[in-house]
Amino acid sequence: MAHSSKHAESQPETSNRSPSGKDQGTLIIIGGHEDKEGRRDILKEVAQHVQGRGLIIATVASHKPEGYFESYQQGFDGLEVGELTELYVNERPEASDQDRLKVFENAGGIFFSGGDQLRITSQIGATPLEARIQQLFQAGGVVAGTSAGASVMCETMLIKGSSEESYRVGDLQMGPGLGLIRGVIIDQHFAERGRIGRLLGAVAQNPRVLGIGIDEDTAIVVNDRHFKVIGSGAVYVADGAEISFSNSSEARTNEALSLHDVRLHVLSAGEEFDLETRRPSASHLKKA
Amino acid sequence: MAHSSKHAESQPETSNRSPSGKDQGTLIIIGGHEDKEGRRDILKEVAQHVQGRGLIIATVASHKPEGYFESYQQGFDGLEVGELTELYVNERPEASDQDRLKVFENAGGIFFSGGDQLRITSQIGATPLEARIQQLFQAGGVVAGTSAGASVMCETMLIKGSSEESYRVGDLQMGPGLGLIRGVIIDQHFAERGRIGRLLGAVAQNPRVLGIGIDEDTAIVVNDRHFKVIGSGAVYVADGAEISFSNSSEARTNEALSLHDVRLHVLSAGEEFDLETRRPSASHLKKA
Repeated sequence: MAHSSKHAESQPETSNRSPSGKDQGTLIIIGGHEDKEGRRDILKEVAQHVQGRGLIIATVASHKPEGYFESYQQGFDGLEVGELTELYVNERPEASDQDRLKVFENAGGIFFSGGDQLRITSQIGATPLEARIQQLFQAGGVVAGTSAGASVMCETMLIKGSSEESYRVGDLQMGPGLGLIRGVIIDQHFAERGRIGRLLGAVAQNPRVLGIGIDEDTAIVVNDRHFKVIGSGAVYVADGAEISFSNSSEARTNEALSLHDVRLHVLSAGEEFDLETRRPSASHLKKA
Repeated sequence: MAHSSKHAESQPETSNRSPSGKDQGTLIIIGGHEDKEGRRDILKEVAQHVQGRGLIIATVASHKPEGYFESYQQGFDGLEVGELTELYVNERPEASDQDRLKVFENAGGIFFSGGDQLRITSQIGATPLEARIQQLFQAGGVVAGTSAGASVMCETMLIKGSSEESYRVGDLQMGPGLGLIRGVIIDQHFAERGRIGRLLGAVAQNPRVLGIGIDEDTAIVVNDRHFKVIGSGAVYVADGAEISFSNSSEARTNEALSLHDVRLHVLSAGEEFDLETRRPSASHLKKA
């Protein structure tokens, strides 16, 4: 894993090149509370994709970012990443500050910590900072995010909805995310916060999107419309393509959701999923 | 709704007669915390099936049954049920006590309150008391149960398993239940306690059984292998018939479950489901 200092040509020997020939990076989408002290499977995966270059820790999701950066410094300690740099945006104009954007020059990746996904999008949407993230990603870099940093990856992101109860029509806030991954809705802290209800509520609104629920200390590593699962928990994929009935549009607000014929997959570490065919691939699995 | 005192002939003008001609009653399987003060939709349904005859409140699931009976006395107040009688079994020999069994003479139904499903089966399994419950049911009576009293209805009942985390192989205790409903596993407090993981774990063990998860203040009313949903929450049906991959048998204990192609239905009040065809029927729905 060479530490390259040639910025313009600093792309890795990429296996991330899409069939279209367009360079594209890796997304590492984490369900929150990734292990930072033990096996560190997820942080190791991030480090592997950063390939010795710099890693930006974007704490912008948090209203009180103190301590986040330090915990990642400790978490990545001893792993093969270059310099870690914190990126915070207190006020939106800072996201256009050229000095602040210099952190991208050596960066092989950016890692969004948790907090409030709306804070990320409202502070950096349509700014030079957001453009640099897109450039980094298109150039083969890694964009990682945990918790709020996971939700924000989507075109349409889940913002708020009740946990630990079944979905009630209308009880869901969604909004435009960073759009780094198409056609999916991500939810995080999935099993831990009992969120199958709200994920199904989102899928019911438009079965075009696949619902992906990611447990804590669990992540999907996305390349070219294909992901693999890493970490200690499970990833749930709710596919609504075959839904035969839903009361999503005609029910009164607060009425319980009704939804027939959702296809559900539960995936664990080592498994892969193709977002285009909407199918898991288990052939490579060597379990037990 | 006539108040009949003719015990032997006290069966209702039954619509519960199965196609085989065998008399069979109604199961009302409740996900816990049914409303006892407001709309009381579930208690009203129980009363309707009891048809003015007596209702036995079986508090046997609880190690400390104090207060349960009184709360149901208040809950059923003003509804068209006959006398409410408490049935508790402190020690197993009491379940053979003929005096105690006299409560069945006027009864149109029995209602199991919550607690520990193992306490129900260990105290009454293979006793004259259990035989009377089966007789009551076969004669067209209603057997209702909430929480532990819901789980216990199954042939194989779910006893224990982690909530609010994804299922890990081996993390599930099941055992023989009362066997009043075939081919299903019931779980309760479903959305509220984040139990999709453990229900899928049970279905993965043998997709012959349909997994049915019932929210609080929600119930299924089962007649002749067909149920309808009542109450304020949702009922989840996990159908594993099409499962294409599972690590349930070969994974190591404590490894995260992997399961592909579960069919999931979310049903709300007024919807019906056929346990034989494994299909919901939405045709009758008049929503919005």
